[in-house]
Amino acid sequence: ADPRADEAARARQGQLTKPPGSLGRLEELAVWLAAWQGCEKPGLNTVEVIVFAGSHGITARGVSAFPAEVTAQMVANFSAGGAAINQLAEAAGAGLTVVPLSIDTPTADFTRAPAMSEAAFLDAVSTGYAAVSPDTDLIALGEMGIGNTTAAAALAAALFGGTGADWAGRGTGVDDAGLGRKAAVIDEGLARHGERRDDPLGLLAALGGRELAAIFGTTLAARHHRIPVVLDGFVCTAAAAPLGRLHARGLDHAIAGHVSAEAGHRRLLEAVGLSPLLDLGMRLGEASGACVALTILRAAVACHSGMATFAEAGVSDG
Amino acid sequence: ADPRADEAARARQGQLTKPPGSLGRLEELAVWLAAWQGCEKPGLNTVEVIVFAGSHGITARGVSAFPAEVTAQMVANFSAGGAAINQLAEAAGAGLTVVPLSIDTPTADFTRAPAMSEAAFLDAVSTGYAAVSPDTDLIALGEMGIGNTTAAAALAAALFGGTGADWAGRGTGVDDAGLGRKAAVIDEGLARHGERRDDPLGLLAALGGRELAAIFGTTLAARHHRIPVVLDGFVCTAAAAPLGRLHARGLDHAIAGHVSAEAGHRRLLEAVGLSPLLDLGMRLGEASGACVALTILRAAVACHSGMATFAEAGVSDG
Repeated sequence: ADPRADEAARARQGQLTKPPGSLGRLEELAVWLAAWQGCEKPGLNTVEVIVFAGSHGITARGVSAFPAEVTAQMVANFSAGGAAINQLAEAAGAGLTVVPLSIDTPTADFTRAPAMSEAAFLDAVSTGYAAVSPDTDLIALGEMGIGNTTAAAALAAALFGGTGADWAGRGTGVDDAGLGRKAAVIDEGLARHGERRDDPLGLLAALGGRELAAIFGTTLAARHHRIPVVLDGFVCTAAAAPLGRLHARGLDHAIAGHVSAEAGHRRLLEAVGLSPLLDLGMRLGEASGACVALTILRAAVACHSGMATFAEAGVSDG
Repeated sequence: ADPRADEAARARQGQLTKPPGSLGRLEELAVWLAAWQGCEKPGLNTVEVIVFAGSHGITARGVSAFPAEVTAQMVANFSAGGAAINQLAEAAGAGLTVVPLSIDTPTADFTRAPAMSEAAFLDAVSTGYAAVSPDTDLIALGEMGIGNTTAAAALAAALFGGTGADWAGRGTGVDDAGLGRKAAVIDEGLARHGERRDDPLGLLAALGGRELAAIFGTTLAARHHRIPVVLDGFVCTAAAAPLGRLHARGLDHAIAGHVSAEAGHRRLLEAVGLSPLLDLGMRLGEASGACVALTILRAAVACHSGMATFAEAGVSDG
């Protein structure tokens, strides 16, 4: 981040016609965007929502309320413009890119083998990295993949400790029996791959999925280009978490758009040190929560750039 | 509200391409709007932000961090387009109407007399009532008035019990000594007018201010016309609270856009039975929090109206 832009944006906030601090997180968001964009008045002209989709071998273990073919069906729905994220991206004035990652070839069941080979993992990371256009003002990230809350929970447990029961949630709406299967499957995955505890990328390859690896790649590329990032829910946060494990400030360019209703998300956000903007009980994925959060960022930028200063408006400043 | 529209909107939500309930409060908001607008697919084409401004005799008691003349200066800033609410209303695609209410004539110091005479009170309520255009899809309400968090705290204490210390907050940023004066002034007001405890409108006249009375009037008119309302922060909620006291379901057509950082707001929201949409540490007033919440409502409506059903998209529904 750019300390001069940070300082200039903070100084500007102090001169705008409002009591200091009275716009709360809108002020922090404007300063954060300024610091990462490297200018006193940040812009949100080119905002891109990127949704990665992947298929998961673990679905064969009965961990989801929806059949595995829904991943491809939803990718078709994204293309046709009928999904939630299509409406939300348009409402937020953002472009939408959907990137299906070999969805006809599920990852391996992680209880039996690493979900991805090194080649498959690097390919997915590279795809995510290459999805970033350097002149983007802001990126919102999301995913689609039946079974991927199981992968995310296994990854979170491996990175931050705890058992399957600690991290498993209902995902798209699995019943109690399914939730029990999910926790057991996660524990099996931890038993097989948990010895890699100090190798965040190895865990991402072994327990994650292609869309998680791609989200990691995009988050890394955004950091390289100093593009601020809005993360979505549980799966998205888990996918980005290895970057925070590799570098203590590795996620400083990212914010959590919301805390989802998926059971492990609040705990995961605490583990990675992110404080969510919204808490609306959403648990859809697709970047839906991140996209709603974009509207908050637009409000922050509108105030920061458009408000008069005390001097300009002739208002007494207390 | 219209039970048929409510039912039709709920049925539609169940058919959209997402796990049931996975859009959380966005689903509830869409159904709420449908019920009050009386149609399955609610619209947000005509959204009006109305900000009432008033002056308060209680400012002579040193209860605010800003001088009383800032009220008129900020009204000028609203007209010039330099305030936060100008930027936020534009960003939310809403019209903005600012209504100054005799701001050259402060209300009486409520520790010595009722803040408003019956005539002045009814005039302000009528102005608020008349500010509503019946064909509006949604109204967001807000206020400006140096000293009005003291009036709102006194009103909240009188309506729901407690002392000045329980309800006084820092408003625009008063220091510890000022906060102590504020609590003491509220207690004086309660001692003078508290016997009207079962007369919500009498309390609003005795302890409130013209902008609070007008907000009450607008909320009442909106109910008459079945127009959904988004309330802003502490002052706005206190102003609408008497309607909830006069009728148990009197605020069913209203939502709380946010919980502000003003000390008493969370408690007040609990007292009136409203659950805030946002918690962003805002405490500016001007309808700023309500206006940011409008963007969430737009997201809710975009999903509700624009998404494909499972049948339309050919997606398996679990």
